[in-house]
Amino acid sequence: MLIVMKADATERDIAEVERRIAELGYRPHTMPGASRTAIGVTGNDRPVDITRFETLPGVAEAIRVTKPYKLVSLDLRPDKSVVRVGDAEIGGDELAIIAGPCAVESREQVFAVAEAVRRSGARFFRGGAFKPRTSPYAFQGLGEEGLKLLAEVREAFGLKVVTEAVDEASADLVDRYADVFQVGARNMQNFSLLKRAGRSPHPVLLKRGLSATVDEWLLAAEYVMAEGNYNVILCERGVRTFTQHTRNTLDLAAVPAVQRISHLPVVIDPSHGTGKNHMVTPLARAGVAVGADGLIIEVHNQPELALSDGAQSLTLEQYGQLVQEVRAIHEAIAHAPVG
Amino acid sequence: MLIVMKADATERDIAEVERRIAELGYRPHTMPGASRTAIGVTGNDRPVDITRFETLPGVAEAIRVTKPYKLVSLDLRPDKSVVRVGDAEIGGDELAIIAGPCAVESREQVFAVAEAVRRSGARFFRGGAFKPRTSPYAFQGLGEEGLKLLAEVREAFGLKVVTEAVDEASADLVDRYADVFQVGARNMQNFSLLKRAGRSPHPVLLKRGLSATVDEWLLAAEYVMAEGNYNVILCERGVRTFTQHTRNTLDLAAVPAVQRISHLPVVIDPSHGTGKNHMVTPLARAGVAVGADGLIIEVHNQPELALSDGAQSLTLEQYGQLVQEVRAIHEAIAHAPVG
Amino acid sequence: MLIVMKADATERDIAEVERRIAELGYRPHTMPGASRTAIGVTGNDRPVDITRFETLPGVAEAIRVTKPYKLVSLDLRPDKSVVRVGDAEIGGDELAIIAGPCAVESREQVFAVAEAVRRSGARFFRGGAFKPRTSPYAFQGLGEEGLKLLAEVREAFGLKVVTEAVDEASADLVDRYADVFQVGARNMQNFSLLKRAGRSPHPVLLKRGLSATVDEWLLAAEYVMAEGNYNVILCERGVRTFTQHTRNTLDLAAVPAVQRISHLPVVIDPSHGTGKNHMVTPLARAGVAVGADGLIIEVHNQPELALSDGAQSLTLEQYGQLVQEVRAIHEAIAHAPVG
Amino acid sequence: MLIVMKADATERDIAEVERRIAELGYRPHTMPGASRTAIGVTGNDRPVDITRFETLPGVAEAIRVTKPYKLVSLDLRPDKSVVRVGDAEIGGDELAIIAGPCAVESREQVFAVAEAVRRSGARFFRGGAFKPRTSPYAFQGLGEEGLKLLAEVREAFGLKVVTEAVDEASADLVDRYADVFQVGARNMQNFSLLKRAGRSPHPVLLKRGLSATVDEWLLAAEYVMAEGNYNVILCERGVRTFTQHTRNTLDLAAVPAVQRISHLPVVIDPSHGTGKNHMVTPLARAGVAVGADGLIIEVHNQPELALSDGAQSLTLEQYGQLVQEVRAIHEAIAHAPVG
Repeated sequence: MLIVMKADATERDIAEVERRIAELGYRPHTMPGASRTAIGVTGNDRPVDITRFETLPGVAEAIRVTKPYKLVSLDLRPDKSVVRVGDAEIGGDELAIIAGPCAVESREQVFAVAEAVRRSGARFFRGGAFKPRTSPYAFQGLGEEGLKLLAEVREAFGLKVVTEAVDEASADLVDRYADVFQVGARNMQNFSLLKRAGRSPHPVLLKRGLSATVDEWLLAAEYVMAEGNYNVILCERGVRTFTQHTRNTLDLAAVPAVQRISHLPVVIDPSHGTGKNHMVTPLARAGVAVGADGLIIEVHNQPELALSDGAQSLTLEQYGQLVQEVRAIHEAIAHAPVG
Repeated sequence: MLIVMKADATERDIAEVERRIAELGYRPHTMPGASRTAIGVTGNDRPVDITRFETLPGVAEAIRVTKPYKLVSLDLRPDKSVVRVGDAEIGGDELAIIAGPCAVESREQVFAVAEAVRRSGARFFRGGAFKPRTSPYAFQGLGEEGLKLLAEVREAFGLKVVTEAVDEASADLVDRYADVFQVGARNMQNFSLLKRAGRSPHPVLLKRGLSATVDEWLLAAEYVMAEGNYNVILCERGVRTFTQHTRNTLDLAAVPAVQRISHLPVVIDPSHGTGKNHMVTPLARAGVAVGADGLIIEVHNQPELALSDGAQSLTLEQYGQLVQEVRAIHEAIAHAPVG
Repeated sequence: MLIVMKADATERDIAEVERRIAELGYRPHTMPGASRTAIGVTGNDRPVDITRFETLPGVAEAIRVTKPYKLVSLDLRPDKSVVRVGDAEIGGDELAIIAGPCAVESREQVFAVAEAVRRSGARFFRGGAFKPRTSPYAFQGLGEEGLKLLAEVREAFGLKVVTEAVDEASADLVDRYADVFQVGARNMQNFSLLKRAGRSPHPVLLKRGLSATVDEWLLAAEYVMAEGNYNVILCERGVRTFTQHTRNTLDLAAVPAVQRISHLPVVIDPSHGTGKNHMVTPLARAGVAVGADGLIIEVHNQPELALSDGAQSLTLEQYGQLVQEVRAIHEAIAHAPVG
Repeated sequence: MLIVMKADATERDIAEVERRIAELGYRPHTMPGASRTAIGVTGNDRPVDITRFETLPGVAEAIRVTKPYKLVSLDLRPDKSVVRVGDAEIGGDELAIIAGPCAVESREQVFAVAEAVRRSGARFFRGGAFKPRTSPYAFQGLGEEGLKLLAEVREAFGLKVVTEAVDEASADLVDRYADVFQVGARNMQNFSLLKRAGRSPHPVLLKRGLSATVDEWLLAAEYVMAEGNYNVILCERGVRTFTQHTRNTLDLAAVPAVQRISHLPVVIDPSHGTGKNHMVTPLARAGVAVGADGLIIEVHNQPELALSDGAQSLTLEQYGQLVQEVRAIHEAIAHAPVG
């Protein structure tokens, strides 16, 4: 169920609705919007009696939700969500750029890359300290030591840190050192981790699984939000298909598909989405042109020496050029003549 | 085998190489380029003795080709091909826009749409007279009558006509009435039709099959070119994957993939590539941003009454808006600051 | 529309219904069954007035068909179709085995293989004379000369010949020399070829396309049947997916899926369905166990020298072993205790 | 690296090799086989000096492993692994049948189903107490209470309990109450969970991920084994493709693919592999025919009331019939005449 408050509903009206919901053993999720506040209800295992709420002061409407998702939906929040990360944001007017190496390898590496990222005007730094690797014998990341290096980068360059957690223990550390809690593609339906992300104090960047439908992806976001963390950023990073010219097939139509259903911002990962250096910039341009809110890009100061994903990492120079190109496109769309 | 001529090779040198190739029972394919001419050799069922050619006047180099494709390859023509269709072109500096209804239905319909297409500045008109339909009981197109209407559109609006042939009989008619011979996705490996297209006097627009790899697609183009028709335009129109939010998954990474191997121009079909009206414009923008040479767009004066593919057709207004947006992006890329 | 005749309807009743259908400009498709005859109606572009028929003598029921397929459907013929090819059959109690080389290469080759095929007790010989090849430079088959060798095989061994047509010209030759007209996977939606197959005097073996849904496959069969050729055998030969351990993914669930909708027999092609020699026999066993009516198997007397598809061809010995194993399974299913 | 011991190597020889490996900081994995023992080495981040080992008493050979997997490989153990679960086994001569409801719902339910499972002669009972569900609002399982019911089933019927763990907390409970630790498809690359399974005292049933290649699946097994738990059973349960007639596409070719690389047993899940009641039995037959070591089947006493996956659950009667059919096929293969 979803309760839409009138435009002139008071804080007290809202609090009273919340109280009534809690009284029934359910959980209220209050989403203030530009013109009105809506309150989602979860935790009910059967339909809620709508009439209980329709007559409360300040309530415009109580709506039965028939779709599988509630909190991610435009029904609950018709305005687009802007996720705030300190003084930066994702989903607003500015194009969000998240850049950095696949894996944190050394202080020298992260500082060299972070300097270039900062110089480009980007606000977010990515880098993995816990790497989910297909083989148990591959480099699995520096762990907490890597997170400390990322925290140093934040201090030195003022960049917000985006990094992945893979389980309970790493989640605690990510909460401590990072600014954005990333859930990787392979864990998109690791529901325990999603619930844990929902209890993080940080916004969550949720990558789409390799064979996830848009519905499954939104329901994964719903898992996070149902725990009370409404700051979710979706990330399209390519799906698995029969094609062989790329490691994954970047599904850019997922962006308008999401935007038709959900208020959540979406960013594009053309690095994992293609797996090939020479395709990252063209697909980054396409991602911005399709209407994504941002990009997440792998950059390395020495891609040929990278401990993971070197083949898809941009050099610092390539990255600088990419930023100029995508900004030009972002600008062009913003000012495109409206028919 | 591939014979690269020196920059100062004469017409006579080239003719002599061609003569020697023909003498062996093989076929020469001469591709003039900006700085040099290359001659591809087909028809040999075993490796050709390279030394026969290396000492001929004007020959710079004779190269054994180990890849499955020869004529589509950048090895043969390192400069990008520009396909000329009368006074229009695809693959040059200007963005090529091909627009029109899925199927030709009536004079009123094609004239209404063509007027809007012409007004937008596009140079190409699309429309099907022979429709390959999944069901034998669905509308299969107006046939020759439809082609005549397309020819009228050309007369009235100066638009070049792009239309599909599906077999020998329809190919003869398309040759007679149209400007570009389209091979549809379902026929991408109908090798008899590909050879027939290779004998058409017109350029060939070759759609990628629903489950074709980039290699298979390029080899389909090679079939056309091996018959002597070097004017091939590739068209990405989406591939079939597990996703459900679109009819097909538009694989925009195919554009840089093709550009790394082949000199042929590539256009994007966001109408079939998504199957949904609200996604056509975002994906058209993405197609231009990724670096495609053009777009092919379904437009209908009354989409709700369309005899086929109405759900994905744009209205005339939506189409006008799309053209403005993609032009803005094409402009932005052309003038993007180079690092 | 579909008209179901009473069990005691006379030939004359049936003829009268057919006459009335033709009178309206439509086409009657009469399907005699074990207990009753049904008559499908095609060619109507709008719903037919059912009441016209319900009162005719011998008519039990006139049914509006809402599904996209009519003639392939169990509604029209509730009993399974048995396709007769001379004194052999596909779809009856006996397991149909179609075996032979991918491509006809020489008299020596086809005779060596045919001898083993005959010895195994199989009734059908396969071999391609027109090979649809991905590359224009690959061996494309011996053409009519190959068909003549196949006809010699029929004479010498009494095997029925199954071979592929790819266009109008090859279809005429296949009609002349062969017993079963094969439509290959790449041509499954070559609708002109399907219509041509519908006018062949021979049964049609229709391979599923690499990315065809079951519905599209059945509608391709509908194209053949709508022309009046009701002897269609479906062939599952693997679909294209992300997997890499096989050339295609054999979709055995397609067999019960088809059987729930259609009366047409289905055979399995584990050779193309896997593309690997060591997988052919296990998947052939699985194909029989899932309930297919037969198998089509590539066998070569010298697989290492095969001009096409050698990697998946069985040796004569492997083939002999396969036949014993699948017969044991076919037997086991026939006699499985029924609960 | 992999050290193969001579047939007459003593326990002491083996212990000495293990000691030397440990001394270098690596981990020895000793796999006794029918004719010889091999010792895999993991934990080395660079190639090990082979000559150190080749001269030790009892060592036949030291082999550098170049493939990404070591412990799952036939190189390490050329004989097929038989996984023992108490007095039952998977991978031996007998067909292993694991049957039960999707989710544990009540004592009445599990006892009704277990009675039928026991009666069929199956040795394993399945049932989920922790259900990974796409929606946060769907029934998530009874948790520990469900595990207790499963333990009661074991007591009452002597069936071995197979059940899924989804995180650290549930893993502890599964260790306590169950006999086989299941890792679900959605967690196949949840590497933390895989490592945890590697420390379970129980055998691990590892489902293939929805878009996992065979290599990725085997590497997931390698994660479990690298922790010292060598009792892994692989389970094919269908992959995600474009097809629409099934929920997933059961990839039976994965069975011979695995058997060519690995000594691990493989079972088939035709319930999730098809998602449709009427397909479960045909695909179960096919799974046995292709050479799988067992089946895992969803059975429910009242499928129409099931809290999850009712559409694919068999009734008790259907299940009984399935067991008879698959046993007949298993028998037929065992006794198939060998050429």
